[in-house]
Parts: sequence; C-alpha cells; structure tokens
Amino acid sequence: MMKSNVYIALLHYPVHNRNGDVVTTAVTNLDIHDIARAARTYGVKGFYIITPLTQQQEFAAKIVNHWKRGYGAHYNPWRKAAFDITDVAESLENAVEDIARRERSDTMTIVATGASLKNNCITCEDLVERISHDRGSYLLLFGTGWGIADTILESADVCIDPIRGPSDYNHLSVRSAVSIILDRLFGKR
Amino acid sequence: MMKSNVYIALLHYPVHNRNGDVVTTAVTNLDIHDIARAARTYGVKGFYIITPLTQQQEFAAKIVNHWKRGYGAHYNPWRKAAFDITDVAESLENAVEDIARRERSDTMTIVATGASLKNNCITCEDLVERISHDRGSYLLLFGTGWGIADTILESADVCIDPIRGPSDYNHLSVRSAVSIILDRLFGKR
Repeated sequence: MMKSNVYIALLHYPVHNRNGDVVTTAVTNLDIHDIARAARTYGVKGFYIITPLTQQQEFAAKIVNHWKRGYGAHYNPWRKAAFDITDVAESLENAVEDIARRERSDTMTIVATGASLKNNCITCEDLVERISHDRGSYLLLFGTGWGIADTILESADVCIDPIRGPSDYNHLSVRSAVSIILDRLFGKR
Repeated sequence: MMKSNVYIALLHYPVHNRNGDVVTTAVTNLDIHDIARAARTYGVKGFYIITPLTQQQEFAAKIVNHWKRGYGAHYNPWRKAAFDITDVAESLENAVEDIARRERSDTMTIVATGASLKNNCITCEDLVERISHDRGSYLLLFGTGWGIADTILESADVCIDPIRGPSDYNHLSVRSAVSIILDRLFGKR
C-alpha cells in the first residue's frame, strides 16, 4: 500500500550525453505528457520538470499551463488531471525545497534511477516496503540524455536496480523507464 | 521463462477516436522508437507497425530503415538492435501471415490490450504461465488513439487486464502501456 508522499523529478541537468560529458538536455513535449500521465496513474503526488535554462522553463511551463488552466483543461479533463500534479523547477534543490514546504517536513529520501547503476541499489519490492513503513517523503529521480550525472547519483540516498528483461539490452526511453518503475512500485496486479 | 515466439503489433487501424468512431491514426516517430526499444529489451521477436495507408507505411518504413540500414545503424548500434526486430505491415492479417511464415506454423494466440477491457481478460501472470507452456506463437495487440476497435477485440483469443495503479485514473500513453505490459510479462525483478 502506498502512502501519498511520493514525488518524481525529470532531470534535464546535470545529465550525461553519449560521450559522458555533463550537459543540459532539451525539454520535450512528449516526455512531459507521458510522464505526467504515468505519475497520475500511479498516485504520485508531484512531478517536477527540472531545467536550469530560463527559456526551457518557459517552454515547459507553457505546455503545463495549457493543460492545467488553458484550452487543454477544457478539451481534455483527463490530461488536466495529469498536469495538475506537474510543475517546473530550475534545480533539484528547488524541487526538494518545494516538497519540504508542501509536506511541512524535510524528511526526504532521494532515490536515483539509471540503466547502468551498480552500487547502493535495491529492488522495487524493497523500496515499496520502505515507503510503506516511512512517513517521510520520497523523491524519485529520472535522467534524460544518457542518464543522471555522478554528482547527483552520489548524493542520492538509495538507487533502484536497473530495469532488466530477459536479454542484456537495456536501452529504454526515459518515458518507458518511469512507467515501468512506477508500475513495479505501485501497480495493481 | 519466456520462449522466443512473442510478437507485438501497434495498430493505427482499426482504432477508436475520442468520439468512439473507427478511424486510422497517424504513425508517430516516438511511438516507433519507444516501442522498438521496449520490445528489444524484453526479448520480443518482432514488432509490427500496422497502417493501411500507403504514405504512412512509407513514412514508417523510412524511419525503420534509417536505423536498420541507414546512417542511424552506424550512429547508434543499440537503436539498430531495436529496429532489427521492427517491421511495417498494411494490416493485422498481413502481420499474422508473416509470423506464420517465420514460425512455419499458424498456431497463434492473439492477445488484445486496452484501458477499458472487461470481458475475457486474464492477468499478465496467467498469460506468462500460458506462454511458458505453449509452443505456439503469441501476438500482443496495442491500439493507438482511444483504443482497438471492437471487431478486433472480438476476434482476439484473450485480453489482458487493464493496467491499474492505486487510483482509478487509467489514461496512459500507448508507449507506457506497451512498456508496462512487457515488463509485467517478461521483466526480471
């Protein structure tokens, strides 16, 4: 059983590019839609789109507000419901502060995800067990590009085991990864 | 344990639009990429993009061939691996015939999926049990737009229970739905 204090964040910085450099990726419309819908399906309390670039923040906010309050909210109430839990933040720190303010508590476990994590990882089953016995909030981080930068990974409290199928191929889109991890944690079977 | 004879198809016709009419939806680039990557991750043997429109078949084939054999195959071998199992078909019948030819057998179970299915549904757990004891092939159908049309649903051998989280909200993207169902069936936990 899930408590209602799980949040997720989609990081556009700091993340790796294909060469391992730390970069800022572009916000994409479909990431926002797919992840907002998955977050809403699985009872996530808030979804933060994180980018340090002002223009990208404005772009993301324009999409979010179209579906929250603009024409989209009238056109598709289901989409509005997904965007009602979606916000833009300029940094992970800002998202963390916002959650602490909402929860009136700074007791928070930061959970990293990634396709090639090795250390400090637990299964989704173990994580959901922890969440069910913990009154603090949880923030699950997902990286765009080639994954979350090491500085953030090192500061996370715990990591989730990489998603694996029967093969050794692990190149899912971040949209797929968010959906699968939320389903493993909170899906009804 | 999965046998290697599971296929998936993404239907762009016949599917419903938001008013319940039967329509043909447009092929989208990101559907193809995300679903090919998920299919490859979970050991799916073939992924068929189904559309009756010649121009749309050409558009889909152009994307698929770019990553299979064109510049993309060199640029990103992981993406090539996903597209190597991806093909375009003009109808569900054509996909079924192609699978029968590849498998040298027409023993096939057609499995429908959808967010609002009620009849003839089984859990992913039950389906994976069936797959593990069956030498025939399986074709999982996913609908774009507002879901697979009734004529196809009625002709399917079995349906998978709709994906549910802790809430009653069930408006996932088809990209998310494919990823989650493949993970429920074939993911390693």
